[in-house]
Amino acid sequence: MPQTHEVTNQVPPHHGYDAAADPALLEALAREGAGRAAPELHRLGVLAGSEQAAEWGRLANENEPVLRTHDRYGHRIDEVEFHPYWHELMHTAVSHGLHAAPWAQDEPGAHVARAAKFIVWSQVEAGHTCPVSMTYAAVPALRAAPALAEWLEPLLASRTYDFGLRRPDTKRGLIAGMSMTEKQGGSDVRANTTTAVPAGDGTYRLTGHKWFTSAPMSDVFLTLAQAPGGLSCFLLPRVLPDGTRNRLLLQRLKDKLGNRSNASSEIEYDGAFGWLVGEEGRGVATIIEMVNTTRLDCVLGGASGMRLGLIRAVHHATHRRAFGKALVDQPLMRNVLADLALESEAATAVAMRLAGATDRVARGDSDEALLRRLGLAVTKYWVCKRAPGHAAEALECLGGNGYVEDSGMPRLYREAPLSSIWEGSGNVAALDSLRAMARQPETVEAFFAEVGRAAGADRHLDAAVAGLHKQLADPAGAEYRARQLTETMALVLQASLLLRHAPAAVSDAFCASRLGGEHGGAYGTLPTGVDTGAVLARAATATV
Amino acid sequence: MPQTHEVTNQVPPHHGYDAAADPALLEALAREGAGRAAPELHRLGVLAGSEQAAEWGRLANENEPVLRTHDRYGHRIDEVEFHPYWHELMHTAVSHGLHAAPWAQDEPGAHVARAAKFIVWSQVEAGHTCPVSMTYAAVPALRAAPALAEWLEPLLASRTYDFGLRRPDTKRGLIAGMSMTEKQGGSDVRANTTTAVPAGDGTYRLTGHKWFTSAPMSDVFLTLAQAPGGLSCFLLPRVLPDGTRNRLLLQRLKDKLGNRSNASSEIEYDGAFGWLVGEEGRGVATIIEMVNTTRLDCVLGGASGMRLGLIRAVHHATHRRAFGKALVDQPLMRNVLADLALESEAATAVAMRLAGATDRVARGDSDEALLRRLGLAVTKYWVCKRAPGHAAEALECLGGNGYVEDSGMPRLYREAPLSSIWEGSGNVAALDSLRAMARQPETVEAFFAEVGRAAGADRHLDAAVAGLHKQLADPAGAEYRARQLTETMALVLQASLLLRHAPAAVSDAFCASRLGGEHGGAYGTLPTGVDTGAVLARAATATV
Repeated sequence: MPQTHEVTNQVPPHHGYDAAADPALLEALAREGAGRAAPELHRLGVLAGSEQAAEWGRLANENEPVLRTHDRYGHRIDEVEFHPYWHELMHTAVSHGLHAAPWAQDEPGAHVARAAKFIVWSQVEAGHTCPVSMTYAAVPALRAAPALAEWLEPLLASRTYDFGLRRPDTKRGLIAGMSMTEKQGGSDVRANTTTAVPAGDGTYRLTGHKWFTSAPMSDVFLTLAQAPGGLSCFLLPRVLPDGTRNRLLLQRLKDKLGNRSNASSEIEYDGAFGWLVGEEGRGVATIIEMVNTTRLDCVLGGASGMRLGLIRAVHHATHRRAFGKALVDQPLMRNVLADLALESEAATAVAMRLAGATDRVARGDSDEALLRRLGLAVTKYWVCKRAPGHAAEALECLGGNGYVEDSGMPRLYREAPLSSIWEGSGNVAALDSLRAMARQPETVEAFFAEVGRAAGADRHLDAAVAGLHKQLADPAGAEYRARQLTETMALVLQASLLLRHAPAAVSDAFCASRLGGEHGGAYGTLPTGVDTGAVLARAATATV
Repeated sequence: MPQTHEVTNQVPPHHGYDAAADPALLEALAREGAGRAAPELHRLGVLAGSEQAAEWGRLANENEPVLRTHDRYGHRIDEVEFHPYWHELMHTAVSHGLHAAPWAQDEPGAHVARAAKFIVWSQVEAGHTCPVSMTYAAVPALRAAPALAEWLEPLLASRTYDFGLRRPDTKRGLIAGMSMTEKQGGSDVRANTTTAVPAGDGTYRLTGHKWFTSAPMSDVFLTLAQAPGGLSCFLLPRVLPDGTRNRLLLQRLKDKLGNRSNASSEIEYDGAFGWLVGEEGRGVATIIEMVNTTRLDCVLGGASGMRLGLIRAVHHATHRRAFGKALVDQPLMRNVLADLALESEAATAVAMRLAGATDRVARGDSDEALLRRLGLAVTKYWVCKRAPGHAAEALECLGGNGYVEDSGMPRLYREAPLSSIWEGSGNVAALDSLRAMARQPETVEAFFAEVGRAAGADRHLDAAVAGLHKQLADPAGAEYRARQLTETMALVLQASLLLRHAPAAVSDAFCASRLGGEHGGAYGTLPTGVDTGAVLARAATATV
């Protein structure tokens, strides 16, 4: 081979690291009451950073699920086939209790440990976390039907992943899905037309469609339909108690921008069998328990993606040289990487804080319920909204190589807009923040009590909080201003957490840039004076 | 069909409109001296907005090019096969003179008309504009070799698209490509290792590789290699004067995030035949003429993508109802759409201004050359940097439907990061702005002279310009601050143009939000008082 064909100055593969080796995450884990889960988190982190897991993720993404509507003889079967590595990902997630397991655990911190593991493991391939999240989130809604919950919760919390269409009571573990939106309604679920007719035996028959049903191979689904008493929540099994299949007809799989390892489908209910969950007419109130919980996972997913983008970018910049020195030593690249790191740490801090609130709410803490109600809406808006830009910038750090699928960065970038759309797009989340404040003014008090714990620590935060109070006191045009309000609320919550818990290099730079106006409309615009060395040293722990 | 399966409240297809019906574009066309091209622009716009062209774009994207390294008998052929609709796209672009045609036109405004057509036609499918841009940009560099230029320019400017590997002198029109970066160097092209050895007859033989060679089925390529006298620029034909194929071996096509209708490849030069362009050792100085010109097209492409995202979002919001009224009538959605519109109009205004500068420079205007030098670097950084976030927000306006490829929004979003990476990523462009100012201080004067034409028109602009002067006077840490500086320069240039040429509703909102600090880190955060009705009425001209 001539010398001109030797390959030099390319970075080594980003394998063989501990994805849990993130001080921001580990400190939050301890702070929120799950420090004892650190050893398991590190074991999962080493697996997540392994070449083997990377291959599971890559091949599950490249070998997309295939819909089989009929068998070779023409019988309707409505099955979805997955690559074996999809099942490896699911097996790992379920066996580590990333799904409904915390609901079955008595010890404080169970939801916090699960959140940290979710952030770490999602970095391998985000697609499979969709059914994992829905299984986690189904439990609070399902409890509106105590008999169903008593039967199914142990199976939803089981650490055995048992794939396949069989009767729920014959399986060692179940996966749950959710079907809410229809073609004509989207987020406006009250426009749903699917009907639910009582069968006379306490069960119902559903006719209609769902426009987005992710993970259609799940064992049970929570869904909404119009019953005689109004929009109601139902649980539909894929396989009926008599062993035949429920009439959930898969029309096609969605050809999605990202999240391609996961199947998302359009479904028709053709007289499908369902159990009522909660009361007739209380469908939204019932299923909202599930939505609130998946919103936590949207935030965890956002934090996970940012962390992945950051460490990939730092890894590249550490090993790649240009114009005489490593990229990571060049001032402008340091500004970009440090800026990405601040965003990542702020997302992790607030995600873990809300996981802590979820944990405490599960054990009856009503103050935390107030913080969680408003904090989740606000943070779901902001962290998810920031994800695509963060992914684009991290991708660009790899230059042209970042634009090629081999690098993994396109997969991250394609996934990024999803959580901002899922469970209500940005506007829905921002307006829900207003709704929470209007209906439960005590959520505002709980929010400011939390933010106020850092009062006096930074002049930018103090000024932003004062400005926010003023803005909230003026209801004129609140809908029009909802994004700006929500963004500011998310930023002061993040700033308050960083000021209390992160190194000064991180919190000072965050406050100056995000609250002090010393920041541009792109990453890499941190002001002079930021200690990029300290910020990057803290961020660069999972590179090799 | 039961009523529950009727499809309602979905938007009509976005076909049958005039993509040129954009006041911001049409006014700029006239302003920059090409008003007489309006009728042709509208004809192209109607084609671009037609169902037929949409199908060309969709199918060219879905049916990706295929590399044939060998024929059935094992002969090396190095051909790339394209879908017939790719060729329709290329035929349209070439026959409308979007490639090198303006270089052969004497009349003022030729480059301006071409730029407007480029913005309009790129909206159909951006992938094919890569070879179109390279053909456009090859001419200024090729002129460093007058004999080659005299021979090839008429063929590069020909309005006949003549695909296929044949001797250049037997073809009715040529396409040009560019090969610069290598695995080990990327933007740092001085690290290139490819060698060029004189053959004794005035030609050279090149051995080495290129890591990114887009449009490898082009007829001629400008490339860089190490000659005895240093890094030099060469022209390589795909087919040699004797009719045999040049030794350009295609290794594989890149599996790219977006831009998938276009082929991008890794190439090995195996003693490839080349003509020297310019002097030995002057390779970068020679090819930079091409790079500067493709940078204009990066900006045009950015403006084009934003316009497409905007009109798709407005179209959806106009026809989709939720919670009792059309999305476009809901205050927060109006804030989002108006904010997207401001970004789009500002990008169009500055892109067309730089196209005008390009046109005047082609006719010997040296003041405009100074503005163009700095303005292109600054604007390439900023407009391209803003593209992914703009696309993500436009996509989200369509909710879950926006995340599905059918909607076309994923294609726009996947394309969006490309132009920020191509021709030097964001950091390269920002640092090049510093370099221009340091090496040619008169570019700074030209820049501020242009911006100053709106002096006194808006207090935010005046304050920003004053602040910018202060920042530029302080060279400390300029590299670290390069993105912030460049962003501010781009914004004051855009603001100056909008203040002079756009309706007050647009320019006031732009200045208040982008320069006055009344803007968040996401779209949809315009301050109270913006006349969203006026902004949206101006933007919504190409919806149906």
